[in-house]
Order: sequence, then C-alpha cells, then structure tokens
Amino acid sequence: MATLEDIGVSALINIITAFAFLLAFAILRIQPFNDRVYFPKRYISGERTSPRHSRNFVAKFVNLNITTYLTFLNWMPQAMRMSETEIINHAGLDSAVFLRIYTLGLKIFLPVTVLALLILIPVNVSSGTLFFLRRELVVSDIDKLSISNVRPESIRFFYHIGLEYLFTIWTCYMLYKEYDYVTSMRLHFLASQRRRVEQFTVVVRNVPHVPGHSLADTVDHFFQTNHPNDYLFHQALYNANKYARLVRRRERLQNWLDYYQLKFERHPEKRPTGKMGFLGLWGKSIDSIEYYKQQVKQIEKILTLERQKIIKEPKSILPVAFVSFNSRWGAAVCAQTQQSKNPTLWLTNWAPEPRDVYWRNLAIPFFSLSIRKLIISLSVFALVFFYMIPIAFVQSLANLEGLERVAPFLRPVIELKFIKSFLQGFLPGLALKIFLYILPTVLMIMSKIEGHIAFSTLERRAAAKYYYFMLVNVFLGSIVTGTAFEQLHSFLHQSPSQIPRTIGVSIPMKATFFITYIMVDGWAGIASEILRLKPLVIFHLKNMFLVKTERDREKAMNPGSVDFPETLPSLQLYFLLGLVYAVVTPILLPFILVFFAFAYLVYRHQIINVYNQQYESIAAFWPHVHSRIIASLLISQLLLMGLLSTKKAANSTPFLVVLPILTLSFHKYCKNRFEPAFRKYPLEEAMAKDILERSTEPDLNIKAYLADAYLHPIFRSFEEEEELVEVRVDKHQTRRVSPPVSEPSSPSPPHYVYHPPSPPHYVAHPSSPPQYVYQPSSPPQYIYHPSSPPRYAYHYEVEP
Amino acid sequence: MATLEDIGVSALINIITAFAFLLAFAILRIQPFNDRVYFPKRYISGERTSPRHSRNFVAKFVNLNITTYLTFLNWMPQAMRMSETEIINHAGLDSAVFLRIYTLGLKIFLPVTVLALLILIPVNVSSGTLFFLRRELVVSDIDKLSISNVRPESIRFFYHIGLEYLFTIWTCYMLYKEYDYVTSMRLHFLASQRRRVEQFTVVVRNVPHVPGHSLADTVDHFFQTNHPNDYLFHQALYNANKYARLVRRRERLQNWLDYYQLKFERHPEKRPTGKMGFLGLWGKSIDSIEYYKQQVKQIEKILTLERQKIIKEPKSILPVAFVSFNSRWGAAVCAQTQQSKNPTLWLTNWAPEPRDVYWRNLAIPFFSLSIRKLIISLSVFALVFFYMIPIAFVQSLANLEGLERVAPFLRPVIELKFIKSFLQGFLPGLALKIFLYILPTVLMIMSKIEGHIAFSTLERRAAAKYYYFMLVNVFLGSIVTGTAFEQLHSFLHQSPSQIPRTIGVSIPMKATFFITYIMVDGWAGIASEILRLKPLVIFHLKNMFLVKTERDREKAMNPGSVDFPETLPSLQLYFLLGLVYAVVTPILLPFILVFFAFAYLVYRHQIINVYNQQYESIAAFWPHVHSRIIASLLISQLLLMGLLSTKKAANSTPFLVVLPILTLSFHKYCKNRFEPAFRKYPLEEAMAKDILERSTEPDLNIKAYLADAYLHPIFRSFEEEEELVEVRVDKHQTRRVSPPVSEPSSPSPPHYVYHPPSPPHYVAHPSSPPQYVYQPSSPPQYIYHPSSPPRYAYHYEVEP
Repeated sequence: MATLEDIGVSALINIITAFAFLLAFAILRIQPFNDRVYFPKRYISGERTSPRHSRNFVAKFVNLNITTYLTFLNWMPQAMRMSETEIINHAGLDSAVFLRIYTLGLKIFLPVTVLALLILIPVNVSSGTLFFLRRELVVSDIDKLSISNVRPESIRFFYHIGLEYLFTIWTCYMLYKEYDYVTSMRLHFLASQRRRVEQFTVVVRNVPHVPGHSLADTVDHFFQTNHPNDYLFHQALYNANKYARLVRRRERLQNWLDYYQLKFERHPEKRPTGKMGFLGLWGKSIDSIEYYKQQVKQIEKILTLERQKIIKEPKSILPVAFVSFNSRWGAAVCAQTQQSKNPTLWLTNWAPEPRDVYWRNLAIPFFSLSIRKLIISLSVFALVFFYMIPIAFVQSLANLEGLERVAPFLRPVIELKFIKSFLQGFLPGLALKIFLYILPTVLMIMSKIEGHIAFSTLERRAAAKYYYFMLVNVFLGSIVTGTAFEQLHSFLHQSPSQIPRTIGVSIPMKATFFITYIMVDGWAGIASEILRLKPLVIFHLKNMFLVKTERDREKAMNPGSVDFPETLPSLQLYFLLGLVYAVVTPILLPFILVFFAFAYLVYRHQIINVYNQQYESIAAFWPHVHSRIIASLLISQLLLMGLLSTKKAANSTPFLVVLPILTLSFHKYCKNRFEPAFRKYPLEEAMAKDILERSTEPDLNIKAYLADAYLHPIFRSFEEEEELVEVRVDKHQTRRVSPPVSEPSSPSPPHYVYHPPSPPHYVAHPSSPPQYVYQPSSPPQYIYHPSSPPRYAYHYEVEP
Repeated sequence: MATLEDIGVSALINIITAFAFLLAFAILRIQPFNDRVYFPKRYISGERTSPRHSRNFVAKFVNLNITTYLTFLNWMPQAMRMSETEIINHAGLDSAVFLRIYTLGLKIFLPVTVLALLILIPVNVSSGTLFFLRRELVVSDIDKLSISNVRPESIRFFYHIGLEYLFTIWTCYMLYKEYDYVTSMRLHFLASQRRRVEQFTVVVRNVPHVPGHSLADTVDHFFQTNHPNDYLFHQALYNANKYARLVRRRERLQNWLDYYQLKFERHPEKRPTGKMGFLGLWGKSIDSIEYYKQQVKQIEKILTLERQKIIKEPKSILPVAFVSFNSRWGAAVCAQTQQSKNPTLWLTNWAPEPRDVYWRNLAIPFFSLSIRKLIISLSVFALVFFYMIPIAFVQSLANLEGLERVAPFLRPVIELKFIKSFLQGFLPGLALKIFLYILPTVLMIMSKIEGHIAFSTLERRAAAKYYYFMLVNVFLGSIVTGTAFEQLHSFLHQSPSQIPRTIGVSIPMKATFFITYIMVDGWAGIASEILRLKPLVIFHLKNMFLVKTERDREKAMNPGSVDFPETLPSLQLYFLLGLVYAVVTPILLPFILVFFAFAYLVYRHQIINVYNQQYESIAAFWPHVHSRIIASLLISQLLLMGLLSTKKAANSTPFLVVLPILTLSFHKYCKNRFEPAFRKYPLEEAMAKDILERSTEPDLNIKAYLADAYLHPIFRSFEEEEELVEVRVDKHQTRRVSPPVSEPSSPSPPHYVYHPPSPPHYVAHPSSPPQYVYQPSSPPQYIYHPSSPPRYAYHYEVEP
C-alpha cells in the first residue's frame, strides 16, 4: 500500500520524464533536418516543400537561431490556434472528432473532480476509523482519502450514492450533448461536402452466377430491372490478389537492383557481386546488377501474362461489384433496401471511400464470412483469457539454462554476474513484452481475416478487440490478482452477485497502482508520442541508407494516420478508470484530468503537423466511443454496488439498483436517436443535395465523374504505362526518363491512394474508354442525358 | 416417485377423459342446433346458411339420423381431406403455417423417439446399479429407464452425448427445411396474391409539426419532395378514441332499448319500468323504453358534435399517416429507408393490413413508446418472478376466518363440516386459478400498453410474454421446487456453472410429473378444445336471451381466431420438454408424440370448421417459433451438461461444449438467411409484381383502389348514414327500414372488419369524394395517368 509520499515521488519522476521528453522534442523539432519528421503533414498539404531555405550549410541541418530555443514551448499555443473548422479542412472530420473525445473527457471530469474532491475527501477523511490520526495524514495511507475509510453501515454512504447519481446524470448529459453535436457535425460535413463518389455508389456482394450470362450482364440486368430510373453502371472487380503479390515482388527486386546500381555508381571501381543461395550466404557467385536486371525482366513477363489472364478469364471476376447510380437518392435507396428474394444474395451496402477500400478482402467468398467471424470471435476470447498460457510456455524455455543449451558458446558471457542478473530479470519478461508489442498487429490481422472490406471498419474492429483485452487484462487483471484465465475460472464458479463484490472490494486498494499507471502509460506515453522517437530514428536511417529519389523521401516521411486501434481503447480505459474511481478514490481524478488536458494538446499538435489520415470515415467510430463510455458507467455502478454491499450498507445499496436501468435506457434512447445517422443516409438529405446539384450544375456528366473511381489501384498502372512518362528525380538532382518497363510501380503508391476522389484525372483521356468495366464493343448504353432530367420526367395530369 | 403403473393408471384416466370429450363432441356436433358452434367458419365462408333444412320441427334441433351416430369419428378423415393449398385459400396462410408447427413436432420427434427408445432404454436399464432387479421392472421406479440409472463415471454416457449430437443435428436439419419451406410459402403467397392495399402503403409515425402548415400539407410536401415518382396520397388519422367510446356507449344504450322493446312486444300488457339509481336498484321509477329512447337521442347529439369537432379541429389529427404509393416498389423503398435527418422523425414502416390495425394505439405519442416499453418489460419481469407475492397475500385473506368476518351471516353454512372442508381446499387455490385464467388477458393488455399498432404484433408480443412465464413458472418452477422468486434469489447467489447442475440433477426426477402434465394439459386440453364447451354454452345462452336479429346471431356465433398468445407458448413448451427429456428420460417422448398427432388433427378440424382469422400476418410468427425451438435446444444441451457433470462424467462432458456454439451459429445463419423475408419486402419481388400488373391491367386506377382503405372503421358510418339504408332482419323475419339515426352502428361491426380489402365498395360512389383525406376544394392532384407509365418515362439515349 503506497503512501501519499510514494505517489508524490512517482509523480515527480514521471513529470520529470515527461518534461525531458518535451524538452527534447522542443529542441529536435526546430532543427531543419528533423522538419520532415515533425511536420510531415505540412509537406503533404503543400505548405512546405523543403526546409533548406538557408544558404549556410550548417543551418541546413542545425537551427542556429538562439531565440527559437527560448520559446521552446510555443508549440502549445500554436496547436491551440487552429479552430475546429480549420482542423476539419486541414485533417478531416475523423481527426477533429477524435480530438473531441479528449475535450469530452475534460468536460466530464472537471466538474466531477471538483465536486468529488470538495465533498468526498472531507467525508472520507473525517468519518474514518482513523480520524484521530489526521495530523499524520501526509505520510499515512492513501486509503484514508478513499471510501475504505468510511465505517461500515455508516449513513455517510448516501454521499457516495448521491454523487454516483449526480456523476451518472452529468456524464449522460455530456454524452448526449456530444453525440448530438458529433451527429450534426457528421450531417453538416456530408451536406457541405463537395460531391463524393461514395455517395453515388453501393457495393453489392454475393452476386449470383446465372448460367450462360457473364457476371457483368447479370449485374446490369438486375439493376436495370429493379432500379430503372437510377442505375448508371457498375464496376466489376477482379481477383488481383495474385497480381498484387507479383507486383510487390517486382518492387522488391527493383529495390535491390536500385541498391546495387547506387552502390556501383558510388564505387565504380568494384562491380557488386552476390551469391545465389539462401540469403546470399553461399552458392554460385553472380554479378548482382545483371542478376536482378534479369529477374526483373522475368517477373515483368509473368506480370504481363497474369494481367492478360485476369482480364480475359471470367473466373477472375469476383461476385462483387461497385454499382453507381445517377443520384444520391438512388444510391441511398439501393443501399438501405433488400434487393433479392433470397436475402443472402445481392447484398447491398454503402461503398466505402475508394481510398478506404481494403481490396484484398473483396475476394473472400461471402458464405465463408460467418464462419470466419465465428472462428475469430472464439480466437479473440481465447486470446483475451488464455494468452498467458503460450507466453508462460515460452518464458519457461527462454531462461538462462535454455539459452546455454542452445548456444553453449555464449556460456562464458552469460556466466558473468552482471550480465546474468540482467538477463535473469530481462528474459522472462521479454516474451510478454514482445507479445504486447505485436498484439495490435495480431488483432488487426484477425480483423482482416474477419473479412471487412474497409480500412475504417478494420480499425474499429481491431480497436474493439484491443478494448476487450485491456478491460480484462489491464483493468480486471490488475484488480483481481491472477491471470485472466484464473479469473474466468473463479467467475464461472462464483455467483453473479458475488462477482461485483469480489472486484468491488479490491478496487480502493488498487488506486495507487492505477495512479502510477496513469502517470507512466498516460503522461510519459503521451510525451513520448510527441517526441516520435521511433519515426525520427527510422526516418534518419532511411534517409541515410535507402532514400534515392524525392518520392522515396516522401515515402520515408509518410507519418501514417492516428493509430485508432491503439489510442481509442486506451482512451476508453481512462474513462473507465475515472468513472470507477470518481466516488471510490477521488484523489485519482486529478491525474486523469492532467492526462486528458496534456493528451489533448499533444494530439492537437500531432494532427495539425504530423498525421495524415488515410481515409475519412466521417466520425464513424463515435457510436463505439459513446457505448463504451456507457459501459464504463455501468461497470462503475455495478462495482460500487458490490463495494457497498460488502460495507454492510444494506439500507443504501438498493438505491443504486435503479441507476443501471436508467443508464441502459439512456443508451437505448441515444442509439435510436443518433445511431441511424452513422449507419444510413436519410433520403431527405440525399434528395436535397441532388436537387441542389442539378440546379447549380445542370451540365454535370455524372457518369464521367464516377467512371473508374472504384478501379483497383493496381490496374491504374495498366492504363498509364502506355501513356505516362514517369519523371524520376534521384538524389543527384538529375532528371532522366525511366523506361516504362522498369518503372517501379508500387502496388498502391501513396500518390494514388491519397488522391482526392474529386475530378479524376483519367476523365481527361476520353480517348481511352475505361477498358475493364464495360465490354468496349458495346456502345456506352446508359449515358445520362442532362437535357431531360430523369427524376422529373414523371408529370401528373393536373399541376398542383 | 411414481411407478410405471401409476403412469399407466394416469394415462388410462386421461385417455378415458379425452375419449369422453371426443364422444360428447361427436354427438353434439351432429345436432343441427349446435351447427353454428361447431361449423361457424362454414357459415362465414358462405358454405352453409342455415341448418334448418328439415321440415320436421324436432329435426331442426336434434339429429334423428341414426347412421350419423355410428360414424361419429368421421371428423378425423374429414379434417385430413383438405390439402394445404385448400387450407390456405380457406383459412389463410397463418392457419396453414400454424398447423405446420404440429407436423414439425411430429417430424422431429418421431425418429427421435424411435432411436431414443431403441438405444437408450436398453443402455439405461442394463447399465443400472439395479440391474439384477430387472424382473421387477414393471412395478419399479420409472427412473430405471432414465439416465439416473447409469453408474457415475460410466463410459456409457457417450451414448447419451452421441444421441444429443444426433438429435440436435436432426432438429436443426428439420428446422432449416421448415424455415426454408415457410419462407417460400410466404413469398409465394405474396407473389400469387391479388393486389393488396398494404403492399402500396406505408405507415409514417412521428410526423413533425411545421408551424403555419397543416399536418396534411406537411406530409404531402415531404413525400412529394422525397419520393416524387412514387408518392400518391396519404390518409390522415384522427384521434377517434373518444368518439369510439361514445359509439360504444350508444350501442350499450341501444341494446337496452332493444331489450325493453322486445320485452314489451312479448308482454304487451306490462310496460317495462326501471329505477334511475345505481344498477336500477333504487331511485325514481321511470318508463324504461322512454328513458332509453331519450338517452340514445341525447348521445346521438353528442356524437354529431364530437364528429364535427374531430373533423374541424386540427388538434385531433394525429402525427401519424398512412402514405400510399403508386407502386409496390415505391412503398418498399419508403418502408425500408430512413427518411429524415433526425432519425426519430418520419419513421416509416410497412402498414399492417387494414383489418389488422389496432387503431387505438395510433394515438400514442411516439416519444412515450420507449418509456412504455421499459415500464412493461420491468412489469413482465416482476410478473414472471414475483407473481406469487400478491397471490399469497390474497390467499391469506381469502380463508374461512376472513370470509366469516366479512359475511357473518354465512357462518352457519360455513360451519357445516362438508362445506368447510370443501372451502378450505378450494379457497386458497381460487386466487391462483383466477390469476392463471386472466393472465393471457393481462399480458395482452400489457402488450397493448406497449403501443404496437397491429393486432398481429400484439398477439406475438403477448405470446412472448406468456412463453417467459411458462418457461420460468411451469418448466423451471416444476423442476426446482420453490417459487420463481426463490429461484431467482438462489440463481443470483449461485455460480453460473452451478445453475445447470442444480437444474440438471432434478430433471430426471421430474419426468413423471411432466408425463402427467402432458396428459392433463395436452391430451385432455386438446380434447376439450374440440368440444368447445364454453362457446357452446355461451352461444346457446346468447341465442336464448339476447339474439334479436340475424346479425346478432352472427355476432354470437363469431368464433374468433386461433388463440395464438396461448397456444404458441404451450406448443413451444412441449418442444422444450421433448428436447430436454429426449436423452434423459426417453419414455416421455411417446406422450409428446401422441400430443402432437392428436393436436394436429384437432386443430386441423378447428381451422377448417371453426376459427375465422381476423387478420393475415403471412406467417409472421414463424421466426419466433424457430428461435424458441433453438432456445429449447440450447436449454437441453446446457442441462445435459449440468446433469453429466454431476455424474462425474468429466471425460465426456467437454464433448458437449461445442454443441451450443454450433447451435447458436446455426441460428445466426438461419436468421440471416430467412428472417429478412419476414421483415422486408425485396425490391426484386415488388418490381416483378408491378411490371406484371402494369402489363395485365394497364387501365388500373390505383388511386381509386387505395382510396379509403385505411379509413378508421368508425368513420365509415359517416359516409353511409347519408346514403345507405340499413336492412335489419329480426327474429320474426319481418323487414323494416330502420331510421338512420337510431341505427346501432357498432364501433367495428364485423362485416366491415372482415371485409376483404380488394375492390372496396366505396369506390362505387365516385360522387362522394373521400372527404376526410384531402381538402375537397383542391382538385385531385396526383391522379395516376396510365397512358404515360411513370417508371419508364426515363429513356436512355441509346437503346440497349
């Protein structure tokens, strides 16, 4: 049991750590050579091109301006300067709403903290059985400040119950306001947005195979029959997974070729050689440049064959299609209705944004999806509850004896006392550390196996899995000692009313642990987030060894998106901690407040300057955030009930029973009220936008606009190779024309992926009809004829 | 613990009872004066008009044909003669599918019974610890035949586990086939059906109030904007609940008037008089005929005022409307999509059939629905678990001392020994009996409070509530002794893994109880169902005292629908019993088989000859039947696991864990595969029917067809009173013209309610425009013009 002093020391250490990180960040970020690590978003949005504005050679890399060092914390006001609207324009709605989670935390916990500290601390301290020891408070147990200090059967528990009611009502009120606001933001974003292809497009899965008809004909016929007024065309999908693998292989080979060519350019006296065998360690010696040139040529041939095979063979067409409509209304209708008598065929749903599509999963046969889901949910359950078993097994192997047996030559080193003790402390934890490090990746792979077709969905599903893991293994696992597996066993053999007691009793005792957790994982974690140590090192390493062209540098600089699968669950854990401890050990609350405020600042800075969202889901994650905070509320209420029932507060506990029911009803109400805005597209909205567009842009060629929007990025290169001349700029600033064959067309090069969906630049080549969508032999059948607006062709006899 | 002999005796008694009922039925049903009780459906469908074909006066009432008495069981082959298609045409799809539940029971349990008896009985008997007592088997415990007889830790449990797998797979297979078949029946019924108004109509709830606009304008504007091609018109709804109350009161008064007039006609020498005061017991003496004539006249005036008030006052228009479309496609689109940005406004859903609409609930403000739902679900929970508390309280009052205190003059009677013992045995049970008798009504009222707007939904909800009650109080309550409240308490304080054990252990011991239950409630219950003792008595009483006109007789004869809220849950209970006992005590299975076979015959007869469905929900209850049988499977698996774990069969129990997971996956698959067919209307289907109709009936005036279909039945009398001349035929076969003022227009007279929705006979009066739907001053705006088919007005530039 830690004393207040211990906590103070721990806080001091963590504050110093965080401060050191901040200082390091402040110094590093103003160095020009780090500019691309700390401000990549500025480059991507085109605000900066190159930091090398100074003529001084040293100043190119090191900041010599003393004054900038003095104002080293000025990133904070800078981060605050941008308004929310500007953030939405700059980084997208997802990022802006992500920041609102932090402000929501502040809004919820600021009044809660003030009230809890003002009311509960005096109540707890004064009513304690150890009241007479008050002068020793500073050095005594932190439990004196918590609910543990209140005598059993005390009437004072009504303070706690009353405050739990108050906090619940306040949290619900804030949640309601926030859900309302986010919903209106979402709707406003949709309404004010430019035309977007996904508003006109629906993804159709499980298209049935009609014997004697091609898949394209089947789709065309079905939608021409059932959506005669609205159907425009569809984009067939090819199983390009094998092709994509080949392209990736070509890129790898090309990279080696480039590497050896660069090596040869730098040292023209020595032609690089390698060996044929495994990892280039043995085998016949060869000329590396020649070898890789040959390899690349060979794979080019295979690629051409594969490409033709995909286009010609009907089997490579997937029973999935992106169906485009001539109006938002038509797409909204098609996405929300059941199409076929057999509800497992012709499944329609909103198409994700083109850059949000996870192409590989489109090839998954639909019938296997439910089996995949079942298997993955069982695996997640196993992972959450039994993950300690394989780790313990690995730990039992990864000890010193095991190491000595495997590598006897290491014995003299290991036997050194210093190294031995270090390894003994280090090795057993290593397996766990590695596991926790790769866990988000594992969960993401699991979500991919589940077969979702959008990155945004994948990230949300991975976040959900990570949340369950944290809830069981961090929250419950810290409170009830023992592994999750042991907990599961004891929960199965305890009565349902006993479980909240068991957990409730241990809650106040674990407050110090969680305070430390908040400081280490929260404060220091956030400080290290802004320092970006890993990307910094990797960028400079890449820059030193790998970067050959400007595009390579851009690739090395790519900051990625905010890591939702990890940050959302941890955020939700802080909400849970705050709500659970609000009435139990209110002294924990200020630590959470500091976390939210600090993290808000940091992420604001990061979103403005660093991260570059890959997709825009228009705050699709908010319903999950909302429902997990509600779940936290419910958990806190149940645990408080369990805690109070052990305090023999039988006269006051029943008052709490109403609270979960009310909270659940509130949740249900919110679900009805707001969630449809995140799942469906109201017809009123669609129609309003359609009408507006028709009046402002009567000549719009919607078909040309939509054409190719959902072409697999890998096929874009087909069209380009004949026409585009790739300009490559290498490190020596020489321009040379690369032959189209050896052009390293990456499977999804960032400048295609991040391409804004509006005016597709392929429309500019009307001479090349989109080959893989329609049979070129058939004339374009469904061209939208703007002179006869279709929706109004239906006239009533008598005008109203 | 009952012996086999006890069971035999009980079976004999029940068989004799059932046989006696059947004999009574066979004799009663061939008496002509009972014809209207046993064959009302034949009258309604017009196959019979009056049984008085014989000229002999006695033969009018008593069957004198001896040969018909000899073939008294011939109703059975008669019931079997009708094919399923004929039943669908005769009684509707609901009834036909209802019968399929019984055949499903037979299909599931016939092979299960054979297998279980052949395999498990020898296994159980031979492996028993009391094996050497086999020769005394006939008189020994029934438990010898059950799983209880198997030694703990025996390897023979694998037989039971294997059979549980087999039975589960077989049940799932049959369920799948049946769900598939019922779905195709439903779709086929929808496809082959004549045009039905509900296919074109959508009910819109929570229409927002736009200041300065009437509700009708708001609805018109909204749908003209958002469904410009499809919207036809809407039917506004008036809050006529008060008016309906007044109409009911007028009818009551009119009945009294008729009664006194009849009395006066029979005894013209004595003019009937009554008293003004409470129940006619005291007060000023009056002439009854004059008094009621005056009263009726008075209420007529109030009615006229109220009618005008409803029509003129905008407040009486409810924010609900039935919106009609010019195509099924348009209605299907509107019903399945979200209309408004605010998802709690403009809520669209399929309109129920006009005769299925529960008009009173349309007036419930939408926002109160969720509160109502919450309150009702809490009340159902309380009712299921705590219903014994008020009954015990009433029982404590309703004893002999209490009775004597209330009515001291009864003391001499009560003190008689015979009467005292009778009352002592009778009174405490009376409260429970009354409660169980009124329970379905209470549950129906609860469902009505929940605010569903269709009778079919109300009945399904009431059935669900009744099922929960039966599951907890009949099934669990019989297995675990003690009240449901005590069970709840013990379950809350037991571990989740302990509960299946507690129940599982007692299951084999309760087999005899359930066998008796099946015989008493099942066999004898079904036999009394066919006897229709209560309707028989009530019909003859009514016929004797109340029936004055032919219409009165029709009303007295009205058989109502199959009582789904009671029969479905009891049926589901039999499935549960069969599945639970299949491997535990297989001797119970034959009793269930007999029940299913017998009940199938009886209900087939009843559906053909007696019941008259009020509405057609097109088998909307099937998903519930399916999921409750799945729930029964899960319960049986859990209980078997619990039972085996007490038998120390640790090596075999884990094999069962997979089964619930597989069953749940199967359920989920079925839900995805079939349930949408019961909730949504596929566009493909709607479009196909639309196209077919347009080609076969190009001149169809869809607007005239739909006009008034959803007018509140109470308002029909408005239109008629000016035009229709009601012909009343009284007992004396004299025709007289009733003055329109005193015509007893019942709130929902059966011949309006049962009116088939096709060709509404109001269309025949084109001179009277539907007054309460549109402002008559505005010309009919949206008349469908068949010469320009609207859906095809949109032509593409190049014909495909």
